[in-house]
Amino acid sequence: MSAHKPDCLFCRIVRGEIPSRKVYEDDDILAFHDIDPEAPVHFLMVPKAHIDNLYDAGAQHEAVLGRMLALSGRLAAEQGSPDGFRVVVNNGRVGRQEVYHLHIHVLGGTEPLRSGTNRR
Amino acid sequence: MSAHKPDCLFCRIVRGEIPSRKVYEDDDILAFHDIDPEAPVHFLMVPKAHIDNLYDAGAQHEAVLGRMLALSGRLAAEQGSPDGFRVVVNNGRVGRQEVYHLHIHVLGGTEPLRSGTNRR
Repeated sequence: MSAHKPDCLFCRIVRGEIPSRKVYEDDDILAFHDIDPEAPVHFLMVPKAHIDNLYDAGAQHEAVLGRMLALSGRLAAEQGSPDGFRVVVNNGRVGRQEVYHLHIHVLGGTEPLRSGTNRR
Repeated sequence: MSAHKPDCLFCRIVRGEIPSRKVYEDDDILAFHDIDPEAPVHFLMVPKAHIDNLYDAGAQHEAVLGRMLALSGRLAAEQGSPDGFRVVVNNGRVGRQEVYHLHIHVLGGTEPLRSGTNRR
């Protein structure tokens, strides 16, 4: 992989400098449990190569982004969410992004999540 | 494209049987404004080929899924959300999916969206 930012929190997790509870890892993707979960199942999936957010995604990122989404359902089911889950990607100020290394939230459990996308 | 379901709402929108306010279209992807927007910018992106949700996504879907995510930032900016947006994909009962044709919500505007992913 290229493109690691020295001080980026998630780059440091990818490099193993900061511990995480891993859900999945391959050459291009790391998934790990959120440290402040908002649902019984709540993990993050990140591309190992640094990218700030989806505004910066181009053709060279399509493969890893597609693999992340295609993998999310299997991981959600394995983690205890076989009957539904939500994927959330916050980008930039308006999206309330907190860590500027692209990450996909995967949220689930056995009871329905809070409804809507922005309403409640 | 293969795999259209006759009675699926979004397959019917893809086929033009039900009108939509288009944001973007190519051979594999359609984006259109949500009819019940939850934010100043709120459109949906769907793969034209029917797939229920991300549980059913496999290697054959990675390309279109990656293209959808990589395209979302450009479309969000064009639609009036240049300073942040949120992507949400609801899957299954626990995810409160309403239409069982995979769709990506893109939400934005100029003011920060409601915070969190499931908390508030």
